[in-house]
Amino acid sequence: MQFIRLEKEDTVVPKNLRLQENEKAVQSVATILEQVKVEGDKALVALTKQFDKATVSSFLVTKEEIETAYGTIRNEELDAIKQAIKNVTDYHEEQIKTSWMKTRKDGSLLGQKVTPLEAVGLYVPGGKAAYPSSVIMNAVPALVAGVERIAIASPPDPFGHLPAGVLVAANELGIQSIYKVGGAQAIAAFAFGTESIAKVDKITGPGNQYVALAKRAVFGEVDIDMIAGPSEICVLADEGANPSYIAADLLSQAEHDELASAILVTTSNSLAEAVRDEVINQLNELPNSEIARQAISDYGQVFICSSANQAIDVVNELACEHVEIMTEDPLEMVGKIKHAGAIFIGPYSAEVVGDYMAGPSHVLPTNGTARFSSPLSVDDFIKKTSVISYSKAAFQGDAQAIMTLARMEGLEAHARAIEVRLKEGTK
Amino acid sequence: MQFIRLEKEDTVVPKNLRLQENEKAVQSVATILEQVKVEGDKALVALTKQFDKATVSSFLVTKEEIETAYGTIRNEELDAIKQAIKNVTDYHEEQIKTSWMKTRKDGSLLGQKVTPLEAVGLYVPGGKAAYPSSVIMNAVPALVAGVERIAIASPPDPFGHLPAGVLVAANELGIQSIYKVGGAQAIAAFAFGTESIAKVDKITGPGNQYVALAKRAVFGEVDIDMIAGPSEICVLADEGANPSYIAADLLSQAEHDELASAILVTTSNSLAEAVRDEVINQLNELPNSEIARQAISDYGQVFICSSANQAIDVVNELACEHVEIMTEDPLEMVGKIKHAGAIFIGPYSAEVVGDYMAGPSHVLPTNGTARFSSPLSVDDFIKKTSVISYSKAAFQGDAQAIMTLARMEGLEAHARAIEVRLKEGTK
Repeated sequence: MQFIRLEKEDTVVPKNLRLQENEKAVQSVATILEQVKVEGDKALVALTKQFDKATVSSFLVTKEEIETAYGTIRNEELDAIKQAIKNVTDYHEEQIKTSWMKTRKDGSLLGQKVTPLEAVGLYVPGGKAAYPSSVIMNAVPALVAGVERIAIASPPDPFGHLPAGVLVAANELGIQSIYKVGGAQAIAAFAFGTESIAKVDKITGPGNQYVALAKRAVFGEVDIDMIAGPSEICVLADEGANPSYIAADLLSQAEHDELASAILVTTSNSLAEAVRDEVINQLNELPNSEIARQAISDYGQVFICSSANQAIDVVNELACEHVEIMTEDPLEMVGKIKHAGAIFIGPYSAEVVGDYMAGPSHVLPTNGTARFSSPLSVDDFIKKTSVISYSKAAFQGDAQAIMTLARMEGLEAHARAIEVRLKEGTK
Repeated sequence: MQFIRLEKEDTVVPKNLRLQENEKAVQSVATILEQVKVEGDKALVALTKQFDKATVSSFLVTKEEIETAYGTIRNEELDAIKQAIKNVTDYHEEQIKTSWMKTRKDGSLLGQKVTPLEAVGLYVPGGKAAYPSSVIMNAVPALVAGVERIAIASPPDPFGHLPAGVLVAANELGIQSIYKVGGAQAIAAFAFGTESIAKVDKITGPGNQYVALAKRAVFGEVDIDMIAGPSEICVLADEGANPSYIAADLLSQAEHDELASAILVTTSNSLAEAVRDEVINQLNELPNSEIARQAISDYGQVFICSSANQAIDVVNELACEHVEIMTEDPLEMVGKIKHAGAIFIGPYSAEVVGDYMAGPSHVLPTNGTARFSSPLSVDDFIKKTSVISYSKAAFQGDAQAIMTLARMEGLEAHARAIEVRLKEGTK
């Protein structure tokens, strides 16, 4: 872990963790997208063979596969999935938006009509691990929003199968369209449609670099949620915080990805050192610790600040996906944190509770995009339409001002669309 | 205008109006972005000379320029601007979102913190016309959201000036950072920052193809609202509708751009013919009608449907920016229209009232993106942060399920972030 001591007068410039674009990957993704657009399923079969080493001829998961999945998971696993679905649903139901209409004194109605998206595609990453939680965290906001058609895509293992947890979670949510296809080719299938996978209106969910680049490339053709980068955690803690909790939380993010960032921001020298020691201890106890070790070595950082305000500045400058607050006055800190995907308050709000169980989606902005992006939510799965119903009185009241502005902008036909109605009215 | 008669059994496949990407423009935009990123203001000066034929050395509009602008606009113009600002502000104040928090029985708090974006850049198109209305329709939602730093960029005329209406509208809104720079170079300045123009978090507003491509290219580095294409209007009308109103409204969109679409969807043969005749008559009366004439010729369409339901299907399939409803039962139609940027109900809700005065922003999704995009609104200028505060009781209640899910996903360090707290608790 890198120690960075900031003096009082330091203007905070943390290391830039932003994802660098890989030109070769961009080109490779463009080729994949074009191939799927032109050849449809045929391309999906070939690309799945090439990238996932799997021979898949029919991408839709069958009822038999779902049944098999239920046979392999334990009761406590099924219960945990059900509990997570309940909590995440409860939280997202608070986000439901409704259409609204206001009336003006002149008899006009103005409002906003809220409509769920018709069709969405959820990407669930695979490869190194199985992510039933990603199914839940993507699908629940869409279900709560009222999306009619929800499809899931996830990369198959070399035997052409998806993890049992993923299938069970999807089935518990009532999602029938689960496709065994991953990577940029899955994004292409959702964006353009193929013989067996229908085009959607929006694609959400995290994935590797190829998935992220493919989502970026199809944006505009369909909507996307965000371009996800490696996971990040930033712990803001004072000397009263528990170093073993902090170390465990840093490692929980570090194990996701060699590129994950694990950052401590503190004013306490002694805490900084205690956390470093704990990270080393816990790493030595952790089985399969290679990824976490690499991430801590490359992107583990401890900022030692000369004041609480400077610490807040660092946290805001980093604009991390996850921010934990373990200080004496956490609620005051919450008010001051402007940029974060999710904030976890106090010693028992381990970031991990948010990954699985608390309620908010774990699909969160990364790479500093918390400056302008939000967690995946019901809002991602609705769209709004403005509604304008002008009364005759409103029309007559506004007519002159509208014509004045239209002619100011040199738009004569705009002015005449008003004029033709005024003339008619005086006939 | 092209007449398209749909038989009962026709599955509706309207002409694809989606914007084709121009490879040369994409390349040219990439070069401009890189140039501004590397050379900053120096590049802006050179590109403004090249594209706007203007010699501008200082991009920030001065107080003197604002004063001059006030000297040149008429009182009724100023009053119209003020009235528009008031109406648009009233409407957007209905959209304000607040942070919320819910408590669980186990003492946990879960919520969402709403924060305005810190800095946004509004693009106001120029060139063929002056658009004070674009200033209002972009800036008001940002102001209502509470954005601290709002900047405007708009292309200067060959004398290095912006239109008086644009300057007055911006000044009435209290916006001080107005920059005389347009095109892809303005988008680059907002995205990367230069010596004189600060980097922003989000760029909004419509523009020409270069602006649209530049916004697309910088998406991810900053947020953008949407990728705007040529204007579109779709009028859904039955035989009782007034053909001269419809014709005037079709032309009001057609005059924006040779690529604008003006579409009538009806079940009435006689209305279709009457509208066509009126379009021809009104075009002959319209000064400077070249653009509108070209648009009507290339993208003017009349769909004559065999049933009201088929007409609704066509409207939904087109997913137009503006949809006018002039039928006997407009409110029933509103419920059935799933995809539209804005809906205008009844004979007095000319689309033009929405362009200037009604309240909703006229920055709307185009090119079929109303399937998944929404009008520019206060929501575009806020972001949300999930807030999780777990009590000890909540933590203990959920601990087992979280560890089960973490281990199911092969994430041991995740499970241990729970375990370390359980152990500590039982010490």
